[in-house]
Amino acid sequence: GARVADEKTSGRASSEGASADVARSCTNRARVTPSFYIMFKTPKHQVAGHQAIDGNLGPLVDDSGRFYKPLQDDERGTTELAFYQSFSSKLPHHIRGLFPVFYGTQLVEASDGSGLRPHLVLQDITSNHLNPSILDVKIGSRTWYPEASEDYIQKALEGDRLTTTVTLGFRISGLQIYESKESGYWKPARKEVKSFSADDVRLVLRKFVSSNLEPEPDCCFASTIYGGCSGILEQLLELKAWFEDQTVYHFHSCSLLLLIDKESVLNGRTVPFVEVKLIDFAHTVEAEGVIDHNFLGGLCSFIKFVSEVLTDSKASTIEASFN
Amino acid sequence: GARVADEKTSGRASSEGASADVARSCTNRARVTPSFYIMFKTPKHQVAGHQAIDGNLGPLVDDSGRFYKPLQDDERGTTELAFYQSFSSKLPHHIRGLFPVFYGTQLVEASDGSGLRPHLVLQDITSNHLNPSILDVKIGSRTWYPEASEDYIQKALEGDRLTTTVTLGFRISGLQIYESKESGYWKPARKEVKSFSADDVRLVLRKFVSSNLEPEPDCCFASTIYGGCSGILEQLLELKAWFEDQTVYHFHSCSLLLLIDKESVLNGRTVPFVEVKLIDFAHTVEAEGVIDHNFLGGLCSFIKFVSEVLTDSKASTIEASFN
Repeated sequence: GARVADEKTSGRASSEGASADVARSCTNRARVTPSFYIMFKTPKHQVAGHQAIDGNLGPLVDDSGRFYKPLQDDERGTTELAFYQSFSSKLPHHIRGLFPVFYGTQLVEASDGSGLRPHLVLQDITSNHLNPSILDVKIGSRTWYPEASEDYIQKALEGDRLTTTVTLGFRISGLQIYESKESGYWKPARKEVKSFSADDVRLVLRKFVSSNLEPEPDCCFASTIYGGCSGILEQLLELKAWFEDQTVYHFHSCSLLLLIDKESVLNGRTVPFVEVKLIDFAHTVEAEGVIDHNFLGGLCSFIKFVSEVLTDSKASTIEASFN
Repeated sequence: GARVADEKTSGRASSEGASADVARSCTNRARVTPSFYIMFKTPKHQVAGHQAIDGNLGPLVDDSGRFYKPLQDDERGTTELAFYQSFSSKLPHHIRGLFPVFYGTQLVEASDGSGLRPHLVLQDITSNHLNPSILDVKIGSRTWYPEASEDYIQKALEGDRLTTTVTLGFRISGLQIYESKESGYWKPARKEVKSFSADDVRLVLRKFVSSNLEPEPDCCFASTIYGGCSGILEQLLELKAWFEDQTVYHFHSCSLLLLIDKESVLNGRTVPFVEVKLIDFAHTVEAEGVIDHNFLGGLCSFIKFVSEVLTDSKASTIEASFN
């Protein structure tokens, strides 16, 4: 494994050395837990990002609740690894739970068949959920940042202008919404998701907390999933309070992953399972004493969208009780 | 007066008809208060924007506390006039005081000698102040917006990337800080202001509330000007709370004007005179159900900068009292 990584190292720019360094340092780890004892699978519930299908490079999961994300062999990999190695000591305790657990790095047979490759080992948020509904929301009214290359800036800016990123301060990058055994999932194609308008986003946020999606989403889970003291809104407000003050990181092109399990009520829970996590830190940079106003503004906009679904559903519940 | 305006109308695109319409409708007003009875002067304390010097077109003031802003004869004029005509009915009472009073429009002899021209008649915030210190802070991490022309977008984006707009979410557009009878004002040239770094901004915010600017700003007014229940920070937090909820306007390229009169203490006030106003609405558009996340993010960043000066000055006061 080390050899493969070492070979790849030669001829690389210095900023691209991260995955090679990791390959060397995690060889021992791979010996302790040899990857051939672990059954790696393609994630069932991935809604955005590179996918490990048809021999492409993408993340893998195992049966023990771990998610293996290939470490990109350029500065994106360096940046994301540096983030995961440092974040737990830099975040207040009550915020740490809003990030996936990081278990280190490991050499794993890459999903594209290119041999052993360093992967970030993270918590698999979807494990233990048969039919999770998931929203991937990229937060911020710009995904580019001054330190990036001019080429990256122009491409990112173009994407931001073509999606709701500029207008809403966030965009939905991917989603799947479970409806029922009969109807299964609603999982629109990436192209469709990319062209979402503000009204499409409003509809998605209503469908996300509905039992029946058609013809009109019933929003029957709005008060328990968006509302309540451990609901999504409360967790977003906690995140917002931290962003109003934190000058540690600027999270460019970072996503908010919302996972809910509406069926968990059937399994004895009184409220549906709800999870809020920040993911994707390949463009996270140091804040240099300034708050992440780009993320904060977008987060506040998203909070407003979510709270409107909650308010509307309360209003219609009151209306229904009077009729 | 009406004739001049009517002549100018011919050949104009429909979006450019605003100042002509106003010229017509405010002819009567001009007859009631003929402009030749009023002594118009160039504002003494203008720190940003077009200036009425050397025969250029710029704003004027009179002796009764009114500020006359030439109505631009393109869609910027239309937009700003529409804003002033509608804002008071659309804003909650406690927020209205953060905007200049609007007295209507009036035909006034233009400062560039081009004849009678429609002007917005606004409250002159600097009146009654002999030596005001003023900061003009353009809020938002972008001054462009999707509805603008591609040419405007590219120029605005370039300016945003060259100043602190992108990095800090705001930029200082102009300032004057009164020090003393002997030293007078510190009023850096526009070119210098444009090239301010984050650290320059921090220094300006310290000097703004200081009695002695050199060699180290003493920040002796920090607690009374930034702090306190009617201080700048409290007013900014009120504005922030409104921006977290309001979906009426998006304020692009709008400025926060901070005016303080440190000398007012000498005239019997217990705390220095402090005024916070939003100005410049030539690019204010309808919000279409979305919060102004661009303004909100920048405002939160500016609030953090101000609160850090306050915190630091408190810390050094405590330190001093122990030494």
